[in-house]
Amino acid sequence: MKNSTMNTRETVFSAPTRRSEAHHKQLSVRTWLRLYACSNLIEQQIQQKLRAQYGTTLARFDFLAQLVREPLGMKMNVLSKKLMVSGGNITGLTDQLVKEELVVRQDDPLDRRSYLLICTEKGHQEFSEMAKSHERWVSELLGELDVTEIEQLYSCLDHLKNRLSTHS
Amino acid sequence: MKNSTMNTRETVFSAPTRRSEAHHKQLSVRTWLRLYACSNLIEQQIQQKLRAQYGTTLARFDFLAQLVREPLGMKMNVLSKKLMVSGGNITGLTDQLVKEELVVRQDDPLDRRSYLLICTEKGHQEFSEMAKSHERWVSELLGELDVTEIEQLYSCLDHLKNRLSTHS
Repeated sequence: MKNSTMNTRETVFSAPTRRSEAHHKQLSVRTWLRLYACSNLIEQQIQQKLRAQYGTTLARFDFLAQLVREPLGMKMNVLSKKLMVSGGNITGLTDQLVKEELVVRQDDPLDRRSYLLICTEKGHQEFSEMAKSHERWVSELLGELDVTEIEQLYSCLDHLKNRLSTHS
Repeated sequence: MKNSTMNTRETVFSAPTRRSEAHHKQLSVRTWLRLYACSNLIEQQIQQKLRAQYGTTLARFDFLAQLVREPLGMKMNVLSKKLMVSGGNITGLTDQLVKEELVVRQDDPLDRRSYLLICTEKGHQEFSEMAKSHERWVSELLGELDVTEIEQLYSCLDHLKNRLSTHS
């Protein structure tokens, strides 16, 4: 009799929980697939436009985007973390950008074993022009959403990013 | 006099438009940066887990995810479009998966110059196990958002994806 009561209670209490867990899982996967698809679609468009108009890549654009904000320079490991790519990739990109005089390596006055990456005047100029186009392209791509929709999307993503950063 | 009136009207009507355009641009870029960051953070976590637990990649997982839904098989160009990667990458992946007996190539009965990719029974089994883990990981990553927040995010992204697909 006790067993039978417990089974009934289990059925009453855990079926909705299981259902809502299953719903959360399915909804999460569908949301992730949309997020991934949107990100890839926009990334591809930006990549194409950067290549066609400036003969450059999104990786180089992102690299400069980080450096232009730091007039005193940035350590390579900090940049690597911000760009979420491996040190190896950063080294290759740095070599290219130094060669093109968009970036310089300078000794770090606070750490003799390390150096800082600094965006040159030429780098600032090239980035500034690309950034204006980038802003226009992104605005066009998101252009069919109105400001309220974009604000809502931004708010959800900002919240998610904070949670993900804590998680990882 | 006429000119001066026109200038005044222009000032009255276009300043808010320019401000709202500038706001749309800035908001779009901030939203895109959040979207890109969230997508990269989740992708990295999933990649790490797929590698650690199944010794596989997200590209292989996505490849099988498309094929398991099509019991009659899928043409390579259709698969390539769905995965948004180049034909070259698909060919390499196909060769690997055929070698591991997860996928087979079969003549297309409707097009003698073409063939279909079909997921094998072994492919279905391997995918099914990975898909359960994938669902759990994604649900955990999005787990600190409640169902209402995820539903809102899904709805915004679904809308955006439809617009982007039309755009491209």
